[in-house]
Amino acid sequence: MAYIKLPPDLPGIRGPMAFRPETAGPLNELVDVLLRGPHTLSPGERELIATLVSSENECRYCQTIHGAIAAHHLHGDEALVSQVKRDFESAPVSDKLKALLTIAGKTARSGRHVLSEDVAKARAAGATDLEIHDTVLIAAVFCMCNRYVDGLATWAPDDPDFYRQRAAVIAERGYVNATLAPSTAAAPTR
Amino acid sequence: MAYIKLPPDLPGIRGPMAFRPETAGPLNELVDVLLRGPHTLSPGERELIATLVSSENECRYCQTIHGAIAAHHLHGDEALVSQVKRDFESAPVSDKLKALLTIAGKTARSGRHVLSEDVAKARAAGATDLEIHDTVLIAAVFCMCNRYVDGLATWAPDDPDFYRQRAAVIAERGYVNATLAPSTAAAPTR
Repeated sequence: MAYIKLPPDLPGIRGPMAFRPETAGPLNELVDVLLRGPHTLSPGERELIATLVSSENECRYCQTIHGAIAAHHLHGDEALVSQVKRDFESAPVSDKLKALLTIAGKTARSGRHVLSEDVAKARAAGATDLEIHDTVLIAAVFCMCNRYVDGLATWAPDDPDFYRQRAAVIAERGYVNATLAPSTAAAPTR
Repeated sequence: MAYIKLPPDLPGIRGPMAFRPETAGPLNELVDVLLRGPHTLSPGERELIATLVSSENECRYCQTIHGAIAAHHLHGDEALVSQVKRDFESAPVSDKLKALLTIAGKTARSGRHVLSEDVAKARAAGATDLEIHDTVLIAAVFCMCNRYVDGLATWAPDDPDFYRQRAAVIAERGYVNATLAPSTAAAPTR
């Protein structure tokens, strides 16, 4: 049970977001810009970065929902998502994404762990300043979300289909809009 | 030197915020709600939470600027800020704030470190659900900011007066407005 009184039917970050809409608004806007805005990294690639960080932070809700959203964007390839979480160096993703995942994983431990050689390697693989910036910020944002979700002891569903269905809603509507209409969005699984 | 090309005159988080205003907007809105919005915790108390977390994460820029803002709100008591960072249990702050600082410090390490007994202790000292929620989220937000600032290797001024003067600007205008007019805001120190 969560440490504070939250709407009982909303899992993960959605409980505290409903409890505090004043902070949920800018938080979802930030995530929409970073994960869904116009970009040279695809939404699937950016969701993989979010998933890896959430996995490193052992946040079950975040790694499962963002893993499901990543898979939704990547033609349903759940095996790829699992492989990225387990060992992204061996996954069939670009060298640029591998270098960015390295930066994201280090950022998750501490910003001070990111070294100039990590950035040089990403740049040599073709990463731009914006891609490097957004990788660091996506990793940092998920260090926030993971702590928000787990620090309040929110609950996470067990059923993988819950996440698949919610992922489809978020992929279609975006984070701000999916959060504004939670009861409709979650209807298929309740 | 920062890992990406940033405006050279803006220290800490202000460089990447100028580089990417699309994410700076919601990020500053989030911080304004949490640290400056109407609340039962004073702005000084909330800035102490932000300062402690930034200190635990060893982020020099964030702990110094938020320590300066905390001191500004707390009648210039810089010694209190130092004592909270060093050992808040011995600091002359309320038992409620000590319990919330404990929750914030654990959230900084991992959300999963916050235990029900930590929350029970805060509640016994008079903390409300909103205060517990916002403590966890402030801690989580600064885990994001600290990683953003250090993951891109931004620079931080050495002169304590830089932080004192900037703190006064932020305390007066707020985070969104102080960021919208950085050149004016920073004028006294340049």
